Amino acid sequence: MSNFDEKIVEYKSVLEPKLQTLIEQADIPEELKEAMLYSVMAGGKRLRGSLLLHCCGLFGGNTEEALPLACAIEMVHTYSLIHDDLPAMDNDDFRRGKPSNHKVFGEAAAILAGDALLSFAFETMMNAIIANGYGKHLTDAAAYLTKALGASGMVAGQVLDMRQEKNADESEIMLKSIHEKKTGAIIEASVVAGCMTARADKKTIEALSEYGRLFGLLFQITDDILDVTGNIEELGKSTGKDKNSGKLTYVKLFGLEGARDLAAAVAVQAKDCIRNIGVSDGFLSELIDFTLVRTF
Amino acid sequence: MSNFDEKIVEYKSVLEPKLQTLIEQADIPEELKEAMLYSVMAGGKRLRGSLLLHCCGLFGGNTEEALPLACAIEMVHTYSLIHDDLPAMDNDDFRRGKPSNHKVFGEAAAILAGDALLSFAFETMMNAIIANGYGKHLTDAAAYLTKALGASGMVAGQVLDMRQEKNADESEIMLKSIHEKKTGAIIEASVVAGCMTARADKKTIEALSEYGRLFGLLFQITDDILDVTGNIEELGKSTGKDKNSGKLTYVKLFGLEGARDLAAAVAVQAKDCIRNIGVSDGFLSELIDFTLVRTF
Repeated sequence: MSNFDEKIVEYKSVLEPKLQTLIEQADIPEELKEAMLYSVMAGGKRLRGSLLLHCCGLFGGNTEEALPLACAIEMVHTYSLIHDDLPAMDNDDFRRGKPSNHKVFGEAAAILAGDALLSFAFETMMNAIIANGYGKHLTDAAAYLTKALGASGMVAGQVLDMRQEKNADESEIMLKSIHEKKTGAIIEASVVAGCMTARADKKTIEALSEYGRLFGLLFQITDDILDVTGNIEELGKSTGKDKNSGKLTYVKLFGLEGARDLAAAVAVQAKDCIRNIGVSDGFLSELIDFTLVRTF
Repeated sequence: MSNFDEKIVEYKSVLEPKLQTLIEQADIPEELKEAMLYSVMAGGKRLRGSLLLHCCGLFGGNTEEALPLACAIEMVHTYSLIHDDLPAMDNDDFRRGKPSNHKVFGEAAAILAGDALLSFAFETMMNAIIANGYGKHLTDAAAYLTKALGASGMVAGQVLDMRQEKNADESEIMLKSIHEKKTGAIIEASVVAGCMTARADKKTIEALSEYGRLFGLLFQITDDILDVTGNIEELGKSTGKDKNSGKLTYVKLFGLEGARDLAAAVAVQAKDCIRNIGVSDGFLSELIDFTLVRTF
């Protein structure tokens, strides 16, 4: 295993038991807990939580303190998938190779499991702030994450996406604006919040914010490519959906080769922006290479 | 107008413009903002926010500092109503005398408006904590509210309510447990958070917590009574729903007169528990009397 693969496995092995323990030990009705755990423990790369933990450690922070925030961001990501899959939204029957939450527990329970995960993410962050002495660094990190997932971030992205589907406004600016909010904001915030938990300086945070923004963009472009080239077994979710729904994607806008070229260019920019501030970090750099060639 | 009525009008007149400004001035896509404001500005008594502001002022706190938290709790209350009214949940077409959110904006937009309001409530609380110097008192109050609205509080109550409808478990213990979480937790937390923003002592917080718990119970009993005796014009929502859905209510369990007797007994207890710690406060006492005879 490469050093990068080892790191990915390591972060996942720290995040998943903590996620499970946090939810299992809370005073939550059994059927709600079951629906929450079904989706939270369904796997996934845990990229957002790993980025937060990694950036915290990279700049000398205490990853024990940051762990609840990393778990919170994974809960938020899971809630967004549960609500996105609902019949009234994307109406998706599969997620991570398993029936989606509402297919197993019903629509009402899935709405509530999503609401509960979002709320529990906040509860987890507030508990971490209090347990660690009301520190400014954790409060700032939690506030940054909170803004990214909300009405001007992730939820806004979902709303703009719906608007685009209705109006078929096929511009790159529109597409970028949707994805910067819908998937990019949370990824960027995971990186920045990690830096904040380590009390990194302003210049570092700005450079890492740009790295996070570019990584989010790369992630979305490769997601659009995989919707065309990937297969359901490896991805664990339906493919060809964007094309069938007439949704605007990078592939639709630039063609498959054009999208691949754009991804390569963004990858170079992302690696540059950490190199430029003198941060030499294998993980953040390899994460870009990994994403560029990912098949899942 | 009585002193109590004046206070109710005063709190409402402080809360509503602030709620509107907070949402209007945020960087939120127009269609999302519209759906959020439609339900947030649909009126209502603003009891939760008023209780928070009142308890803050009563114990010498700075109500300017507490105002964003009071607005946050009104946003949370509104999100819970939007999601409760969804077709997959209670399937209610009317709320506060107007078509419910999903009837106007569609189901997907209503789910997202709810998600956005919940997220924006947290964002508002985090901003208040940071703007007021990371104070312990505001962080504690925000954490208390957060726990009350989540997976072990309000969302848990909604899940238990669904379980009861399936199993028809007609016990008073079950009914109390549902409502202590579903409506009671947020009301109690509004009172306690108000005390916390004023840095009230432990004994005061405990007594006010008990007052809040009993007020929440009284509110629910009178809600069940109004479902039988109220009319749609005054209430602004459908009546007779509980009976038609076979839902367990205090009226079903004790009969109309029995429920009225119980409400009267709870009212006495609630007033006692503030008198016992030497707090003589007209508003909190009159709120109990008002609730006992309310018709809306």
